[in-house]
Amino acid sequence: MKNRTKPSRSFASDNNAGVHPRILRAIAAANKGHVVAYGDDGYTQAAVKKFREHLGKDVAVFFVFGGTGANVLGLKAVTQPYHAIVCAETAHINVDECGAPEKFTGCKLLSVLTKDGKITVDQIKPFLHGVGFEHHVQPRVISISQSTEMGTVYTPGEIKTLADFAHKHKMLLHVDGARIANASVSLKADLKQITADVGVDIMSFGGAKNGMMYGEAVVFFDQTLAKDFKYIRKQGTHLASKMRFISAQFEAHLSDHLWRKNAAHANRMARILARELAKIPRIKITQKVEANGVFAIVPKRYVAPLQKKYFFYVWNEETSEVRFMTSFDTTEDDIRDFVALVKKTVR
Amino acid sequence: MKNRTKPSRSFASDNNAGVHPRILRAIAAANKGHVVAYGDDGYTQAAVKKFREHLGKDVAVFFVFGGTGANVLGLKAVTQPYHAIVCAETAHINVDECGAPEKFTGCKLLSVLTKDGKITVDQIKPFLHGVGFEHHVQPRVISISQSTEMGTVYTPGEIKTLADFAHKHKMLLHVDGARIANASVSLKADLKQITADVGVDIMSFGGAKNGMMYGEAVVFFDQTLAKDFKYIRKQGTHLASKMRFISAQFEAHLSDHLWRKNAAHANRMARILARELAKIPRIKITQKVEANGVFAIVPKRYVAPLQKKYFFYVWNEETSEVRFMTSFDTTEDDIRDFVALVKKTVR
Amino acid sequence: MKNRTKPSRSFASDNNAGVHPRILRAIAAANKGHVVAYGDDGYTQAAVKKFREHLGKDVAVFFVFGGTGANVLGLKAVTQPYHAIVCAETAHINVDECGAPEKFTGCKLLSVLTKDGKITVDQIKPFLHGVGFEHHVQPRVISISQSTEMGTVYTPGEIKTLADFAHKHKMLLHVDGARIANASVSLKADLKQITADVGVDIMSFGGAKNGMMYGEAVVFFDQTLAKDFKYIRKQGTHLASKMRFISAQFEAHLSDHLWRKNAAHANRMARILARELAKIPRIKITQKVEANGVFAIVPKRYVAPLQKKYFFYVWNEETSEVRFMTSFDTTEDDIRDFVALVKKTVR
Amino acid sequence: MKNRTKPSRSFASDNNAGVHPRILRAIAAANKGHVVAYGDDGYTQAAVKKFREHLGKDVAVFFVFGGTGANVLGLKAVTQPYHAIVCAETAHINVDECGAPEKFTGCKLLSVLTKDGKITVDQIKPFLHGVGFEHHVQPRVISISQSTEMGTVYTPGEIKTLADFAHKHKMLLHVDGARIANASVSLKADLKQITADVGVDIMSFGGAKNGMMYGEAVVFFDQTLAKDFKYIRKQGTHLASKMRFISAQFEAHLSDHLWRKNAAHANRMARILARELAKIPRIKITQKVEANGVFAIVPKRYVAPLQKKYFFYVWNEETSEVRFMTSFDTTEDDIRDFVALVKKTVR
Repeated sequence: MKNRTKPSRSFASDNNAGVHPRILRAIAAANKGHVVAYGDDGYTQAAVKKFREHLGKDVAVFFVFGGTGANVLGLKAVTQPYHAIVCAETAHINVDECGAPEKFTGCKLLSVLTKDGKITVDQIKPFLHGVGFEHHVQPRVISISQSTEMGTVYTPGEIKTLADFAHKHKMLLHVDGARIANASVSLKADLKQITADVGVDIMSFGGAKNGMMYGEAVVFFDQTLAKDFKYIRKQGTHLASKMRFISAQFEAHLSDHLWRKNAAHANRMARILARELAKIPRIKITQKVEANGVFAIVPKRYVAPLQKKYFFYVWNEETSEVRFMTSFDTTEDDIRDFVALVKKTVR
Repeated sequence: MKNRTKPSRSFASDNNAGVHPRILRAIAAANKGHVVAYGDDGYTQAAVKKFREHLGKDVAVFFVFGGTGANVLGLKAVTQPYHAIVCAETAHINVDECGAPEKFTGCKLLSVLTKDGKITVDQIKPFLHGVGFEHHVQPRVISISQSTEMGTVYTPGEIKTLADFAHKHKMLLHVDGARIANASVSLKADLKQITADVGVDIMSFGGAKNGMMYGEAVVFFDQTLAKDFKYIRKQGTHLASKMRFISAQFEAHLSDHLWRKNAAHANRMARILARELAKIPRIKITQKVEANGVFAIVPKRYVAPLQKKYFFYVWNEETSEVRFMTSFDTTEDDIRDFVALVKKTVR
Repeated sequence: MKNRTKPSRSFASDNNAGVHPRILRAIAAANKGHVVAYGDDGYTQAAVKKFREHLGKDVAVFFVFGGTGANVLGLKAVTQPYHAIVCAETAHINVDECGAPEKFTGCKLLSVLTKDGKITVDQIKPFLHGVGFEHHVQPRVISISQSTEMGTVYTPGEIKTLADFAHKHKMLLHVDGARIANASVSLKADLKQITADVGVDIMSFGGAKNGMMYGEAVVFFDQTLAKDFKYIRKQGTHLASKMRFISAQFEAHLSDHLWRKNAAHANRMARILARELAKIPRIKITQKVEANGVFAIVPKRYVAPLQKKYFFYVWNEETSEVRFMTSFDTTEDDIRDFVALVKKTVR
Repeated sequence: MKNRTKPSRSFASDNNAGVHPRILRAIAAANKGHVVAYGDDGYTQAAVKKFREHLGKDVAVFFVFGGTGANVLGLKAVTQPYHAIVCAETAHINVDECGAPEKFTGCKLLSVLTKDGKITVDQIKPFLHGVGFEHHVQPRVISISQSTEMGTVYTPGEIKTLADFAHKHKMLLHVDGARIANASVSLKADLKQITADVGVDIMSFGGAKNGMMYGEAVVFFDQTLAKDFKYIRKQGTHLASKMRFISAQFEAHLSDHLWRKNAAHANRMARILARELAKIPRIKITQKVEANGVFAIVPKRYVAPLQKKYFFYVWNEETSEVRFMTSFDTTEDDIRDFVALVKKTVR
């Protein structure tokens, strides 16, 4: 049985990591007596309160099981099937959700090529030519990932520009925040400063990639958008019966800076990893390292030998660009050990 | 903040209960090192092995987050949108999933009225008149709940009759097994004897209602039906990233008879509760108590006062029929206390 | 090649009839020069104007290819997938559209048993218990057929009662008006008196069953409901490119009482047929004959011999109830000839 | 009322044209007596026979109302929602059907940029990296338009290359043949030589753009793919009740070379138009003229004045590229008149 004899290590993804001990303790502490199922409970109230402290007192917050569910259901809440969702070619919703957004929302995704995972207003403008013509899908949502799938981060100004453009054209701005904590830390900004304050309308708030076991949140910055979301969540098969165990995790996650510490650590590990890899001949860092991902060209013949010890994914088969992700539990030993291995391998 | 000062008790649902301590320990034990996400890990292999020990070596097993997801995705795997799913009027898929089956499969549900939650072949036959005519949906799946939403249980013979009928007419038999453990115990039969051995084709295997925190399994007794299920699960937003924590729960659940002990306890509590309630004037037990649910007419004026102490749901507003559910952690004290309360209230 | 040597006759359906000569002439007259496709043309303006003369100056009208499309797209315009559509068990949308409403709207249909195809408020009330609870689909539309699939007709008062109930509970009243003309004639009422004036919100207005070649209309009595319907129609694959040929038909249909004459004739033929059949021993008329359908018990052994000469459908296999439909081109000779055949056969 | 006083002329689209007189006569001739609805009639048998003469004796053929319906339902027949459909960025299914393919099939469309509307195998290869990985949609269909939306035509060799590639990778080749007749004429090839003989699996066969009033056909070159298509057509709201009137059109269309003559004429008109426009300074033809479309850069200031007399569409707002379509009823006078107008305008 693979992977069970000793704890293994990898740079494959931040969801290959385990669960932070404080999260586990919060779960255990919530395991007392009977609690009304489906979220009508004190743990959920407490967790929602935490969200409101961080994101604004008027946000509507709904917990779901996972990240793809959070994206898909959130987008469903603000679209009709003849709408279009504009996103980067590299967006998780576009390439890593097996078409879940199209299946559940009925919408077309209109994607734009980017160098760094970040889209700009100029790239969206051409899609407006079809507005009002029934032959064409109607752009309704701009969806960005923060931090992006390329390890980069939108500045608050960049987000505001996108939000203003969206609102001017009767669109909404959606954020896939599977790694919003990493962006917040990177930007030295509060969560609110990079969301509510710059015009974000709806966000998937990630837990699992930052030390939780499972559970994500769909956050509506305008409660009127959430009016019927409870039905969408249930029909979307994401209403957890024992909701308290998601809520307890989120309460711990958002208390005592746990979310921030976890993300700060992961980001720091990524910076160190990138700095060290950059020194190695034949390895070429390809993206700015602004969050917890490092992208690099690693010549093809070295990839398999390296993957044996520390697993990671090839991002682009043609160019042999690979992706290293760090997480809350990546250690400096992991980095040192791996960098040594790379050096030895490419020598 | 309600429900947090002291552990509360209820008969509202088996999912108001918490998590069995052995399940929690299994989760903690799985929290070591990095593990490949999305199920390509040793914990998942071990859990699938357990399923095969119980249900047959050829079953295909897929873990999902919750029960509605298990039902909906499993049904999707074996239907096209022009198919129909035949079920009892009271089926969870028919009344308690906010239309999720229709939304995700596109199928119509054809429901039949039952006295006890159990459907018979004679009730299904009229739906066959439309077979082959394109104006009508084409019956493809018979879906039964075991144990049923009415606390009753299909005998192996009854299941076999439905399965044989289904197969004769090119249909499949699906089991919503959110409470399959309770049925297995009730029938003094192995899990395999009431599923694979009597012709079941596909089953949702419940965890959360029997002591797990979250996680259900979709079980295919014929692997060819599961051919593309991995895509359906991902597109259906139910591929857990940190899968190991569902798998570890299931491994514990299916080891050392935990599933059986939990269900046996819950069933026994229901029998005692029913026996004691039956002695009280004006309370009328309305269904056979074969699993962990007790249905009873409780005159309307008593309902609210009772609910204050031990919450439970009214099943039928017109007749004031209520439902009491017991769970793995219901105690004899709970029963004694509640029965005393009922006696006092109706006096 | 069957059916081509000589014109055959049947009572199978009003859509087995051909096209009224005035409709054909209108089509030919519209076949001049180039016209902007997709409905931005004078023929369509003229047809919409006719609709407004008949139904009220504020209706929004959209043409589609066929009746199932009209029902499905109209219902889509006023529902979200977590809504439910309440209808009679016998409704075309429930049994004769191969699940198209569920597939396209995502909604569950909640059907009620009726004796005569007509639903009442009391039958709908129980569905309201789930309003506001996310586990249950939310009733949003009451859909009735006028005239019904059983050849009966709702009175204006009955419609108003349903509409008032719907509006009181934030629902809408939808009419499948595939045979609205027959109902209008039967009730000696204008089209407006049995729709706009009694609270109907949205209607499928039938053409093909009353002498047109193809083409139905979706009519919104409140234009705000139609706000995005042009996208729904296009995405629903029902935007005709050469729209003028549907529009020209409707203009003719609604001019010089053609719609009324056709329906009046069909209704009269049905009454005569019913009157004559009622005189024959062993034939039992089972429904009031208020429109252009006649339902009767015809002993099983006579059905096949009769069908050879005048085709018709068996409605209920168990009871051997059959359905005879008359149309704008049914002749008194048809009736006389067929009644003679029945007499000879049952003798 | 616009457009009704005198027949207007345009180059807007081949569906701005009317109906060929022979088609109208066929419709009138079919208007005799009663015929079983929904396609179980002699006219439909005759039309299917014609299709088999042209496309091969084993094709399965189903008539639907329109072109978007033909594309969407045909694609639905060969896909599951987790599949992807690969097509050109300019494909009608990608930009002109308001997201109908996504809505009805649930699939993602993967589009590739082309210069001339034609896709190549090399452009499709990168999509194969995700095959077998559940995170990614699974390419299942390559869909090409013949002739393309850019007025170009795939050679039989090009089609065969795409079909062979598709089949090698367990994909299918779909053809949007809204203008298949124009391609056939352009290639001086029979319909079969550019479809069945070069590996096409499924095709939308266009009628309305080549002189019919309404009606398209979905053609399956392998009948096993069509096994359940009758349900898909009905559930897809495209089963015409008075089917005979589509069938009669197709029978006429495919008899006595009408389809070919109409297309040949339209193609010739396009060639003449292009030849004459090319002589005018400041007008630049941008695509090869291989079918009945002409693409040209027309400086922005001239567009509106020209559109007043002969309407046409701007294809690309940025470059002021416009599209002229010719049809079976475009006359040499139309061309001469319009070219004179252009000359006068740009002078």
